[in-house]
Amino acid sequence: MTPDEFRRAGHALVEWVAAYRERLAQGDLPVQSPLRPGELIAKLPAAAPEQGEPMERILADLDALILPGVTHWQHPRFFGYFPSGASLTSVLGDMVSTGLGVVGLNWQAGPALTELEQVTTDWLRDLLGLPAEFSGVIQDTASAATFVALVCARERASDYGASRGGLQGGGVPLVVYTSAQAHSSVEKAALLAGFGRMHVRAIELDADFRLDVAALEAAIRRDRAAGLAPCAIVATCGTTATTAMDPIASIAVIAGRERLWLHVDGAMGGNAMLLPECRHHWQGIEAADSIVINPHKWLTVAFDCSLYLVRDAQHLARVMSTNPSYLQTPMDRQVRNYRDWGIPLGRRFRALKLWFALREQGAESLRARLRRDLANAQWLAGEVAAAPHWRVIAPVVLQTVCIRYEPPGRSAEELDEHARRWTQAVNDSGFAYLTPAVVGGRWITRISIGMELTERRHVAELWGAIQRAAETAAT
Amino acid sequence: MTPDEFRRAGHALVEWVAAYRERLAQGDLPVQSPLRPGELIAKLPAAAPEQGEPMERILADLDALILPGVTHWQHPRFFGYFPSGASLTSVLGDMVSTGLGVVGLNWQAGPALTELEQVTTDWLRDLLGLPAEFSGVIQDTASAATFVALVCARERASDYGASRGGLQGGGVPLVVYTSAQAHSSVEKAALLAGFGRMHVRAIELDADFRLDVAALEAAIRRDRAAGLAPCAIVATCGTTATTAMDPIASIAVIAGRERLWLHVDGAMGGNAMLLPECRHHWQGIEAADSIVINPHKWLTVAFDCSLYLVRDAQHLARVMSTNPSYLQTPMDRQVRNYRDWGIPLGRRFRALKLWFALREQGAESLRARLRRDLANAQWLAGEVAAAPHWRVIAPVVLQTVCIRYEPPGRSAEELDEHARRWTQAVNDSGFAYLTPAVVGGRWITRISIGMELTERRHVAELWGAIQRAAETAAT
Repeated sequence: MTPDEFRRAGHALVEWVAAYRERLAQGDLPVQSPLRPGELIAKLPAAAPEQGEPMERILADLDALILPGVTHWQHPRFFGYFPSGASLTSVLGDMVSTGLGVVGLNWQAGPALTELEQVTTDWLRDLLGLPAEFSGVIQDTASAATFVALVCARERASDYGASRGGLQGGGVPLVVYTSAQAHSSVEKAALLAGFGRMHVRAIELDADFRLDVAALEAAIRRDRAAGLAPCAIVATCGTTATTAMDPIASIAVIAGRERLWLHVDGAMGGNAMLLPECRHHWQGIEAADSIVINPHKWLTVAFDCSLYLVRDAQHLARVMSTNPSYLQTPMDRQVRNYRDWGIPLGRRFRALKLWFALREQGAESLRARLRRDLANAQWLAGEVAAAPHWRVIAPVVLQTVCIRYEPPGRSAEELDEHARRWTQAVNDSGFAYLTPAVVGGRWITRISIGMELTERRHVAELWGAIQRAAETAAT
Repeated sequence: MTPDEFRRAGHALVEWVAAYRERLAQGDLPVQSPLRPGELIAKLPAAAPEQGEPMERILADLDALILPGVTHWQHPRFFGYFPSGASLTSVLGDMVSTGLGVVGLNWQAGPALTELEQVTTDWLRDLLGLPAEFSGVIQDTASAATFVALVCARERASDYGASRGGLQGGGVPLVVYTSAQAHSSVEKAALLAGFGRMHVRAIELDADFRLDVAALEAAIRRDRAAGLAPCAIVATCGTTATTAMDPIASIAVIAGRERLWLHVDGAMGGNAMLLPECRHHWQGIEAADSIVINPHKWLTVAFDCSLYLVRDAQHLARVMSTNPSYLQTPMDRQVRNYRDWGIPLGRRFRALKLWFALREQGAESLRARLRRDLANAQWLAGEVAAAPHWRVIAPVVLQTVCIRYEPPGRSAEELDEHARRWTQAVNDSGFAYLTPAVVGGRWITRISIGMELTERRHVAELWGAIQRAAETAAT
């Protein structure tokens, strides 16, 4: 494709994206894709074309084949999972990144890529009220960041065992602690890093679904008594199901006393710390060894942009470092080489979309956006709590409201079944999208508020649809 | 940013990218950024803005601040590392992906995202001449794919030890084998997965820098005799320094006999297998358990797009699987959930850029492009070999030519120093970009041919510049 062909197709696609977002704002697309499994596969050719095809045909297929298979995350009535950013500013920042086609293997291969990442992650750290001893890097996801954290914990506890026998050296087994409501990526990270499920403790919760500190202390005591070596605690700032906030200050005291690595998974909740009035939720955070926060969730930056902050960057680089001859440059001693800050060697210019988003919006409007969503969640929680037979089943700490319909005369199992059924009915209707989840052993429905287009009226419309669906759905 | 504001800035940026590529084609930008360490950091504000800024100012800074800090990978005289794709078609595919703002947590959250990835990775597999029992997934990089491969090997060898004590269960230590010229990501993956450096063998090379099969067999025998458990072999199809091809057929026989996992790192060399005349280089490949190939290297697709192919997809999903309540959907039994095919949970719609690139270009033109680059490398190797005191130090298997200037009367150490000095002089001149590397214990210079814009005349210009630099540089 020549630059002139790119101009023609590029202008058409800018219009396409703009029109797509306008349609979303009008709310006339079904939120959940109506596609049946295998339906798109059946419509596509079995082989790549031998001859190139005109762009017009590809763009026509975008509308005819792809769009019906999209679940519209950016829709104002998308209340599933957690919000995922894709502000149009960050879309443009990402286009520039891809257009430049740079790969940051080391500083010299992309000086601006490296230095802009350094500056924008510092900006974010400061906006979150974190001290300057933390240094940042952009990872793809919190899953990868938490894995890196647990490997760093493993290596600190084993005095760089990887340089010897790894976890196969016959040392005392290392143990990881997290809450029973921690994200699935925490256990996955521990298993990938070789700890083994026997050495991962899912600590009990308090009444508000937060990690129970006494239970944590007891577990550590039990493990030490059994001859095991406690190694790391992963605390969650905003759990996936209910956005519960583990008590970081108390956990940090234990981590300090027991010399354990403290990683804080603030993938969702960390974003709220742009608001000074929320910071009490992660009091004690400055004692963490590592923190992950996903600006691609609630801070409008297009996925993927996961901020990983560490207190000891030298330790991180030492654990992750590779230095083959073909990656060495004369600059290496003076610069940051981000390949030693995570798993992949190659690196996109992701800082551009973060830079675009932070500059075009400014911190004030990001804070206003967060406050809008927090207020919408409180409003909805009030409506639900006031409605007969409806219950808000967890404290509404951030922007997620967990609800359950409990008309009298039904067993808990019937209510579970009913919760899943009416939630699916809402999703299948295409009107809105919600996520069911298990909390306290029962099926409930999460309403996660915070897509960029979501205003109070969309939340109100959702609440009406929910009540109708719950009354209509068979039990 | 409203859709209308996006239209204005988006059209401007389409023009910006097109003009950037035109400037590259004219060759008037210095390939290596002249930025000094810290120079960009010093020019940027210390904090994010409180108020939003106009797009005009951001776009002006793109030219004034960012562009001088870019090392221009897409430049026709970029001969560093390996080629990195960023065809304008794939830039557009990626823009659509970001514009849609979808996250593929599971099939239902992005049916088209999942199914297009399934179809396009099948297309690629078939174009590479691989059998249909391989299934594909897009990973970010070969580093991550090789890590996943070694975890899968670990789990097969330990009968899913991760579900018990992990590598801390006190079993017989598992050992990984690779060549002394394997990519640095192989050792890194083994260390991350907990094997430990004591259990990674860098097998000696034959005269052509390929893994020596007799040495591999001897190492396995020694390890078994020492009570260790051989676990996996990582063979390379196109090593980083010289694109040497490990003898996969012979290695596969050993892997089969010894019941070892065979992972093939074809990050670069695998792309060549679009050409039937290259396939003898990876004869025996169908016996591999897993293969990684980076279309973002030589097949024009914008970074990141790493194709990971596995023979036993069920094993992969079992090793990687997480299934918390909030990710379950009614479709799960009928569909592929790619979150269980790698590390991250979140997933961009990366198949779009691959689909755009394959369709707009067609397989024939991709093959023609590969043949152009192979021919250019042979031409350059002929010129170098014919020039006095110049030596091609490794077989030119693909598109990389490794050279060394060896005028008489100098020690090997002096020649090492000279090689690094003249290579840096070429890079610092901004005229072209090359990568020095150590091969056979000596510093040499790699010339990696294959950027989209690189034609024979650019290679000829480079050869002239190299000769001048080598003659001028002090020793």
